Amino acid sequence: MDYPSRHKKFEQVMAERRLDGFVVTHPANLCYLCGYTGSNGMLLSISGQWIFFTDGRYTQQANDEVSGARVVIAKGPLLIEAAKLLAKHGSAAIGFEADNTSVAAAAEMRKLAPRKIRWKATAGLIMRLRIIKDAEELRLIRQAVDLGATVYAQAVKAIRPGARESEIAGKLEYAARKAGAEGMSFDTIVAAGKRSALPHGRASTQPIPRKGFVVVDSGVILRGYCSDLTRTVHVGRISREHRQWYEKVLQAELAGIAAVKSGVTAGEVDQAAREVLRRDGLDRYFTHSTGHGVGLEIHEPPRLGKGQAERLEPGMVITIEPGIYVPGKGGIRIEDMVVVTAKGAEILTPTTKELIEL
Amino acid sequence: MDYPSRHKKFEQVMAERRLDGFVVTHPANLCYLCGYTGSNGMLLSISGQWIFFTDGRYTQQANDEVSGARVVIAKGPLLIEAAKLLAKHGSAAIGFEADNTSVAAAAEMRKLAPRKIRWKATAGLIMRLRIIKDAEELRLIRQAVDLGATVYAQAVKAIRPGARESEIAGKLEYAARKAGAEGMSFDTIVAAGKRSALPHGRASTQPIPRKGFVVVDSGVILRGYCSDLTRTVHVGRISREHRQWYEKVLQAELAGIAAVKSGVTAGEVDQAAREVLRRDGLDRYFTHSTGHGVGLEIHEPPRLGKGQAERLEPGMVITIEPGIYVPGKGGIRIEDMVVVTAKGAEILTPTTKELIEL
Repeated sequence: MDYPSRHKKFEQVMAERRLDGFVVTHPANLCYLCGYTGSNGMLLSISGQWIFFTDGRYTQQANDEVSGARVVIAKGPLLIEAAKLLAKHGSAAIGFEADNTSVAAAAEMRKLAPRKIRWKATAGLIMRLRIIKDAEELRLIRQAVDLGATVYAQAVKAIRPGARESEIAGKLEYAARKAGAEGMSFDTIVAAGKRSALPHGRASTQPIPRKGFVVVDSGVILRGYCSDLTRTVHVGRISREHRQWYEKVLQAELAGIAAVKSGVTAGEVDQAAREVLRRDGLDRYFTHSTGHGVGLEIHEPPRLGKGQAERLEPGMVITIEPGIYVPGKGGIRIEDMVVVTAKGAEILTPTTKELIEL
Repeated sequence: MDYPSRHKKFEQVMAERRLDGFVVTHPANLCYLCGYTGSNGMLLSISGQWIFFTDGRYTQQANDEVSGARVVIAKGPLLIEAAKLLAKHGSAAIGFEADNTSVAAAAEMRKLAPRKIRWKATAGLIMRLRIIKDAEELRLIRQAVDLGATVYAQAVKAIRPGARESEIAGKLEYAARKAGAEGMSFDTIVAAGKRSALPHGRASTQPIPRKGFVVVDSGVILRGYCSDLTRTVHVGRISREHRQWYEKVLQAELAGIAAVKSGVTAGEVDQAAREVLRRDGLDRYFTHSTGHGVGLEIHEPPRLGKGQAERLEPGMVITIEPGIYVPGKGGIRIEDMVVVTAKGAEILTPTTKELIEL
């Protein structure tokens, strides 16, 4: 990864905001700016220097992973070590991540740092860089998406009446592990029958019923990057109504993808998908937004929700995932990952969207 | 779970702190106080009423899980819905969780809530109740620990030179899933050979070498409760030095357990384990604390670290897990979960601690 160029870009952002320094603590931002993937890390940027702090448990990992920053192993709280360094710089405005710093941690920061430090709450400054993926990131995301599709294909074979949802999830996760995934990007969702009407139905010990939809929503983490894939299959003979629902969700998903293009707002993409469902009165069952960014984290900006004014740009990686959830009956969601391009969307997900009846 | 009695206890805590109300957002605290296990939940306690807020994605889950609180499905940000309710109460001091509320969220709270609300940052008030496990919690923790031990026993069979660390982790996780676990309580650690010197060596794609230690540290989540278990095995013929190291760590672990008793400080338990290693000059390789509480979360208070003054009490569930990590050579950690009793410790972990050579 090209950390020096990321540092340079972020130093420009700091200059625009009149920040003399910046403290990074959010794990994905640490990974983005210096490669570290452990816990309890802190990256300090000040006067063109980048210094990474962690504790003794992570000495070897920090030495192996951290790039473009000097590594300091702190004996106690990382902030105390950072404060020593800040003390040398006299008066300074230091930015911190307001969404990832607790009220308790902020109080600690004010207590521990030299008096001349003025702490400045900031929001989303690093994410603003991360939202556009560079070529190396796109390459890694493609690999993660491909692996996610492969393990889904293996798991779907295990879906049959009587098998537990957790068994399907377990097969999928084991396949991901065997293929070298570091882990899953979120709790695997396998929601069958009436449970398919839960938009976030984490795999339970419920057996797959004889008849009904099965929503499988899962993602892997491969070399730091997340994948996200949802497909819905049907066990048993599908009713005409269920088939129509499936077709509508699929049309909504295709309409969402068709609306993606550089310059379009996130809300317009959401609207394109929602409109298809609205025509048949199904939009009231579509209780979430159409998609979200994906990268080092499973949920990143932009959020593709109602009225979102953020404009899509080339290099953004997003999901398109409309769904409907009819209480007591069942639900369907279909989700692809796409890259925003100047002219439209490049679909990353290779998995078929035709209705599969098992 | 006896939510009404938990509510009563917490209302007493609120009264002591002169809080008219309290906003709970930390997921484990939500689960503890009303049974909810989804995302984006908020529990408000005010004037003896408990109201739970979430969004449309979690309608069914909230109705299924939430007990002892009225469920409100919010259309937008939960705080806006909560603010409407608070507006009816006039002037009030409302507590919030300072360790789980970001600086950004706190600013939002001040903006959205009625002017008469005085927000009070609090720390660890609910954890103070959670730290002592009741009989039903202990029953669930025992089940989680037993499952953790069972799946470890299955995974250890797969350890052989050439097998990838991630494959061992995958087998373990799959076995946990098949047995009905909701997930793992942390990223499974399988660290072999030189990597065993990483105290937090998440399973990588590295193959197990012909010779050396393999540290396996894993935990399951079963019905909300976490287990935590570490064992270290050796592949290939073990050297005299490595065997001595193993024996020392085992003695340190036994000394730690022997020191556990109601009334003893957390620091004294840490000291008991550390002292055993110190006698042979191995304490400099013991770079973390001796243990931590476990329950709905994998890391809870008390922390059994150097000089910690908190006193153990009956019903606390803690880990005892000394280890040594010799850079470039390898590491060993041995970990059990125990319940603190009036007279000592009851060991929950059934797994043998004898050195296993594979």
